[in-house]
Amino acid sequence: MSGRLAVVGLGPGAAAWRTPEAVERLAGASDLVGYGPYLAMVGEEDSSAVRHEFDNREEARRAELALDLAAAGRDVVVVSSGDPGVFAMATAVVEALDAGGDRYAGVDLTIVPGITAASAAAARIGAPLGHDFCCISLSDVLKPWPVVERRLEAVACADLVVALYNPISRHRPWQLGRALEILRAQRAPDTPVVLGRDVGRDGESTRVVTLGTVADAEVDMRTVVIVGSTTTRAFVDGRGRTWAYTPRTYPAAD
Amino acid sequence: MSGRLAVVGLGPGAAAWRTPEAVERLAGASDLVGYGPYLAMVGEEDSSAVRHEFDNREEARRAELALDLAAAGRDVVVVSSGDPGVFAMATAVVEALDAGGDRYAGVDLTIVPGITAASAAAARIGAPLGHDFCCISLSDVLKPWPVVERRLEAVACADLVVALYNPISRHRPWQLGRALEILRAQRAPDTPVVLGRDVGRDGESTRVVTLGTVADAEVDMRTVVIVGSTTTRAFVDGRGRTWAYTPRTYPAAD
Repeated sequence: MSGRLAVVGLGPGAAAWRTPEAVERLAGASDLVGYGPYLAMVGEEDSSAVRHEFDNREEARRAELALDLAAAGRDVVVVSSGDPGVFAMATAVVEALDAGGDRYAGVDLTIVPGITAASAAAARIGAPLGHDFCCISLSDVLKPWPVVERRLEAVACADLVVALYNPISRHRPWQLGRALEILRAQRAPDTPVVLGRDVGRDGESTRVVTLGTVADAEVDMRTVVIVGSTTTRAFVDGRGRTWAYTPRTYPAAD
Repeated sequence: MSGRLAVVGLGPGAAAWRTPEAVERLAGASDLVGYGPYLAMVGEEDSSAVRHEFDNREEARRAELALDLAAAGRDVVVVSSGDPGVFAMATAVVEALDAGGDRYAGVDLTIVPGITAASAAAARIGAPLGHDFCCISLSDVLKPWPVVERRLEAVACADLVVALYNPISRHRPWQLGRALEILRAQRAPDTPVVLGRDVGRDGESTRVVTLGTVADAEVDMRTVVIVGSTTTRAFVDGRGRTWAYTPRTYPAAD
């Protein structure tokens, strides 16, 4: 038997940001595998496939079930939000493929990229990622916290714009505060910080606050946090709308 | 008069990766503004708009013309490849909006995000961006080269995966070699390096080489270069296909 498996990025949520390749794979699938809220973003009209729903933390189990189904000849889609390659399901599936060896030799695997949360939030507010930037997950479930601190210190000193994924959760309440403290040591209090929450979904909001005043309480696990560099600028346009961007030009040292 | 302006990301090129929002704005536009090769990615069937073609280096002039046309009541699209927010036209347009003040108060501006080159190349080869990473442009046209070196040293030490944009060109022949030298000082010769060329376009290729052997001559301005971290791994699957990924789990220090 030989089946196929696509790890599909839905993008942030809105149908207007879902690629034709994602739509086609969902429509053709026999089985969808995913975290419940992501499966819920796929309507019955988008896919009539059997749905295999998992808890958020069961990434490895999701990946194995998907590969097993595909190895048995099914047409499987692992549903991911955003870009599956950025802190999402593509890694878990490729890890399981690596571990599985010849067991999955029959599986034709495709990763279907999507628009990641930082790109979507950036688009809503201007162009904060228009210059060198990094994406760092604040989750220390699979990575020691000291590694996160070391990385934040390095990118703060190197003046990169920093997009923080998985900024906070019930089980990880203090990590964001510590991360902001590290960034504050290198950047001015008026540095723009973009908070993009549920971008591309109902009730979305994207706003600009400052590094000096941003509070943990304004951020939840559905928020991506973009901390500007020393050159990132915010302004209000002639229509009263607030924008933030990181200029293309970086000044020479004095 | 009040017009509108969208800075549209086409994604890497393939129609299967172009979002419905991008398609809709192109179809409705009265004017397209862009670098020639990007305008050429928009077929006559996609848009019957007047086309304003510019040279690659004329970003500021492109942005101003687009805003001027929109301020005069036109429905304008600035055409960008990839994600316009990542080393592309969104920044130039928002900069010009900032500089223009009330002159552009009539313009309704939207940034339409797209899939950026690093996401597309990553998808073709697995999940090299599955863990913390950064995107750095090697162009020193608008940024002093010492800033680039300082950033590369910082992210190399912090063990981030590094996606290099604008890696090399006729006018910038040596910068990539120097960047690789900096990364080689911190990472082993067998570190996987992904070279994604023209991903999503005719004649595309994505392959894995190593940091120890990658040569400047394998890279051109249409290539995105993803240099793995110390944990990034490459393997050949049961079908003989090569994959690369950065595991979700990062080891604790000894």
